[in-house]
Amino acid sequence: MADIIHRIGIKAGPDKVFWALSTIEGLALWWTEDTSGASEIGKTIVFQFRDPKGQIKGAFEMEVLKQAPFKKVQWKCVKGPEEWVGTEITFDLRQENEFTIVLFGHCNWRESVEFTAHCSTKWAIFLMSLKELIETGKGKPAPRDITIDNWN
Amino acid sequence: MADIIHRIGIKAGPDKVFWALSTIEGLALWWTEDTSGASEIGKTIVFQFRDPKGQIKGAFEMEVLKQAPFKKVQWKCVKGPEEWVGTEITFDLRQENEFTIVLFGHCNWRESVEFTAHCSTKWAIFLMSLKELIETGKGKPAPRDITIDNWN
Repeated sequence: MADIIHRIGIKAGPDKVFWALSTIEGLALWWTEDTSGASEIGKTIVFQFRDPKGQIKGAFEMEVLKQAPFKKVQWKCVKGPEEWVGTEITFDLRQENEFTIVLFGHCNWRESVEFTAHCSTKWAIFLMSLKELIETGKGKPAPRDITIDNWN
Repeated sequence: MADIIHRIGIKAGPDKVFWALSTIEGLALWWTEDTSGASEIGKTIVFQFRDPKGQIKGAFEMEVLKQAPFKKVQWKCVKGPEEWVGTEITFDLRQENEFTIVLFGHCNWRESVEFTAHCSTKWAIFLMSLKELIETGKGKPAPRDITIDNWN
């Protein structure tokens, strides 16, 4: 089993960060513009990624497992690339002085493969997009995300 | 045991990427400006990180374990924060069309802690600095690195 973990600190209260992690509108502003579905516990959120021509190049469907205001958001991947199905994604929030610390985990990968390494770097880039969104008002969701390699 | 892994693709030949990973001059242009020592196998490289006032806030000493031209660089941390000592860092390079793919690993952490999560995100940022250096001629080594949280 392999886990991807990250830590960022955002200069804002946890309520703003939680909003960006727990609403369709907020998620679309830092991960992918093409976010749909419902973000309540037990519902599913669909994240689609398109190339600059609008063609879908990837999609993930997440079931919302936890949604604890200002503290935690947890999803389980129920559809997507086979390496992702069954994995869980968590965002744990806590306040530390003027920062909201976000501890991120994408856990329970069956094995650590090259795609895991790609996703690890890409998650860091998207978490920095979340930080930018909250701190400056503008994130870099797909398809305006920063390219890291030949896979995206 | 926990591992940090990342993958980036750099639009350049592996010779240029290898240079940035295997020379004191190259390393200083993307990781930390305060890089010294010798980068031959069996020697040690010292990486120091300073705050904007020039005060040292952290340092790592790496023994060079492998240096296979255009293919691999491997270090073992012999001095630094206790979580780092004994861990190994590898950069595996291979060409894929116009890209040099860099598979990065910071392996054998005794346990996965919050500092591991911080280092995972920070490594992604520094690897993007390496990519920028090679592709644009200018990286973002410390102390000009991008801040990710309240620890740096």
